[in-house]
Amino acid sequence: MTRDLTITEVRLTPILVADPPLLNTQGVHQPYTPRLIVEIVTADGVTGLGETYGDTKYLELARPFADRLVGRRVSDLNALFPLADEVAVDDSRTSGRVDVGGLRGVQTADKLRLSVVSAFEVACLDALGKALGLPVHALLGGKVRDAVEYSAYLFYKWAAHPEGAAGEKDDWGAALDPAGIVEQARRFTELHGFTSFKLKGGVFPPDQEIAAVRALAEAFPGHPLRLDPNGAWSVATSLRVAEEIGDLLEYLEDPALGTPAMAEVAARTGVPLATNMCVTTFAEIPQAFAGGAVQVVLSDHHYWGGLRNTRELAAVCRTFGVGISMHSNTHLGISLAAMTHVAATVPDLHHACDSHYPWQSEDVLTERLVFDDGRVAVPDAPGLGVTLDRERLEFLHRRWLDDDGGLRERDDAAAMRAVDPHWVTPSVPRW
Amino acid sequence: MTRDLTITEVRLTPILVADPPLLNTQGVHQPYTPRLIVEIVTADGVTGLGETYGDTKYLELARPFADRLVGRRVSDLNALFPLADEVAVDDSRTSGRVDVGGLRGVQTADKLRLSVVSAFEVACLDALGKALGLPVHALLGGKVRDAVEYSAYLFYKWAAHPEGAAGEKDDWGAALDPAGIVEQARRFTELHGFTSFKLKGGVFPPDQEIAAVRALAEAFPGHPLRLDPNGAWSVATSLRVAEEIGDLLEYLEDPALGTPAMAEVAARTGVPLATNMCVTTFAEIPQAFAGGAVQVVLSDHHYWGGLRNTRELAAVCRTFGVGISMHSNTHLGISLAAMTHVAATVPDLHHACDSHYPWQSEDVLTERLVFDDGRVAVPDAPGLGVTLDRERLEFLHRRWLDDDGGLRERDDAAAMRAVDPHWVTPSVPRW
Repeated sequence: MTRDLTITEVRLTPILVADPPLLNTQGVHQPYTPRLIVEIVTADGVTGLGETYGDTKYLELARPFADRLVGRRVSDLNALFPLADEVAVDDSRTSGRVDVGGLRGVQTADKLRLSVVSAFEVACLDALGKALGLPVHALLGGKVRDAVEYSAYLFYKWAAHPEGAAGEKDDWGAALDPAGIVEQARRFTELHGFTSFKLKGGVFPPDQEIAAVRALAEAFPGHPLRLDPNGAWSVATSLRVAEEIGDLLEYLEDPALGTPAMAEVAARTGVPLATNMCVTTFAEIPQAFAGGAVQVVLSDHHYWGGLRNTRELAAVCRTFGVGISMHSNTHLGISLAAMTHVAATVPDLHHACDSHYPWQSEDVLTERLVFDDGRVAVPDAPGLGVTLDRERLEFLHRRWLDDDGGLRERDDAAAMRAVDPHWVTPSVPRW
Repeated sequence: MTRDLTITEVRLTPILVADPPLLNTQGVHQPYTPRLIVEIVTADGVTGLGETYGDTKYLELARPFADRLVGRRVSDLNALFPLADEVAVDDSRTSGRVDVGGLRGVQTADKLRLSVVSAFEVACLDALGKALGLPVHALLGGKVRDAVEYSAYLFYKWAAHPEGAAGEKDDWGAALDPAGIVEQARRFTELHGFTSFKLKGGVFPPDQEIAAVRALAEAFPGHPLRLDPNGAWSVATSLRVAEEIGDLLEYLEDPALGTPAMAEVAARTGVPLATNMCVTTFAEIPQAFAGGAVQVVLSDHHYWGGLRNTRELAAVCRTFGVGISMHSNTHLGISLAAMTHVAATVPDLHHACDSHYPWQSEDVLTERLVFDDGRVAVPDAPGLGVTLDRERLEFLHRRWLDDDGGLRERDDAAAMRAVDPHWVTPSVPRW
């Protein structure tokens, strides 16, 4: 065997990608969102791809981490974590701050590091797979299904970004009431065949969102529905919503903020609770599981440090009888491929995964991934099975270079202030 | 990439290997112990090796399982488990029976299946590694250490198997008192450089074993010591032993039988408790961890279903702040290599692993693995890095063929009855 798996070069390319004006409890998506594209090149000239958050705090970590990788092998995946620990994180990046875009609780150096490592791990797996002629899922023990199901990710949204703001047009129109949400769901179904629906809530008072879920249930009887207010509700409000529409929901996602509040809700309703907020690290698991706070953990390889850690999370959940599915933030096709590979290997995946991908009109791939009957076929080509479009990457990187700094940090509250100058991130519980 | 990873043939070879007259609470090791050697051959002619228990109940499962594997790929590791579930287990093999040799609690169909799968998973990893030119540890994310530390596994033993019994001579002599145990420990240190010592207890009344531990502590001051009576003690006795020699012990292993008793002991002593009896499956974890019953889980890839499950167990333990190390039953070099590969990839392995290997005078490898300063160097050759000695395999298989059936099932109580016709497996707590 003459393959040389040594990493000879790591390329980091921050980009800005178009994002529609999707609303959440903290504000609205900015016209562009920063992502970081990672390319890991081996001595044999094989290139592996990964992507993660592109805000400055991630870039600051990614650069010294990338330097440390040169000379190591793409198969040395266990070593990524102690290596990341060597990179110092500026206290100002974490202390007391809450992760706005990801809605992932209080920031810590570990969370930042794992989000950075995730892109490098995926890039290593992509390169390793290409070098060995194996798809990434085979490096994770092999797929147990040929396609991975995703849900339609419904958002309240404006028709356009505020006047004067940068941004790309989209033709989805506004969705600010039950009828708008149902229309959005219908279009998703027609375009991609989704049969599960998740509504990002926490935007309007609960009764309006209850009405939207009821309208969805009427339009799509029997289909799995979810509502996710991102922790915007009190325990009492969470219980009232559970009482009113619990029988329509597959699960209720992060109704209240934090493990104690979630545990209190869980103890008083039979509606399963899912989370990607109170359980986003291994350290948060014991308390949440002991208290029965969550019935489904929504994994996210960007949070948990990659695809292999995602599988370990699935093993922990399986051991404790807690369900597993997949959370999504704004991401491109590299991450969708990564999500699909790992999801294909998790035996007890009983819920459709979330993905923002259908909202992303831009990508860095030569060929976009396709949802068919709401499913993405698991690629069997070597590595992730995707190809970088270098011209697109350069174009989106130029947009990042040209930015005056205003969009290099995702800040949904700042975007909201373009319309409502007095907007501040709402304190929770909001309702 | 033209490699064909398809499994074209699976060879199963039951063998009998010499075992010295080592004593435990249930009796004594028989002169020969059954093992099953698994060879998985791919379309490209690559052969992967695995080994596991060789008793009839394992063979009965292994044969139909092997048939199901032909036509699948050695990279399809996640698929091994549902495939094993397809193989029916005769109720008479499990119902109400306790696993004698392994001292692993009540037998279940799942435990039997996982012990069988383990050998096939290791064989698949060996074949995959050879096919790809990668050591098994690289298939598990890469080693994080270059050598794995093992402890000296001290046993009370007779000088020889009973007169008239089959068996090979050994030159270790008897060890039936503190002086004998210290002498055994010294020889282990001289031969292999071990610096940790584990005494298999539950053989003599606790005070005699306390005296042996004290003698070890005097002979090897400051060295990590462990005592493992295999659940032979009551809670009160466990606490008395912990009180008397707890300050000399790295941990106390399975002093009492079952999670509730272990939890009671753990609640009343500061001495860490380790187990390979009350936590031997993922299903047993929640109760044990919630009750704080164990501080160290002694993994065993034969129990847990292979090397990847062992890594998942390590992830569960890490998440809950429980330590991990490695249990051993009688095994040969294939399994020692497998143990070494997986142990090399587990970051938080803070205790020397157990291995019976130094007691095994026979092996099926062309070259035995070596302990240097108590450590086995992690092989970097493709696969497990070991080579089958086909003549030795054939010789040991012939011994199995020639057996009248008396030694094809490990039965430590039966061996004891050769000396003491009235011996029955002691009921626990024995003291």
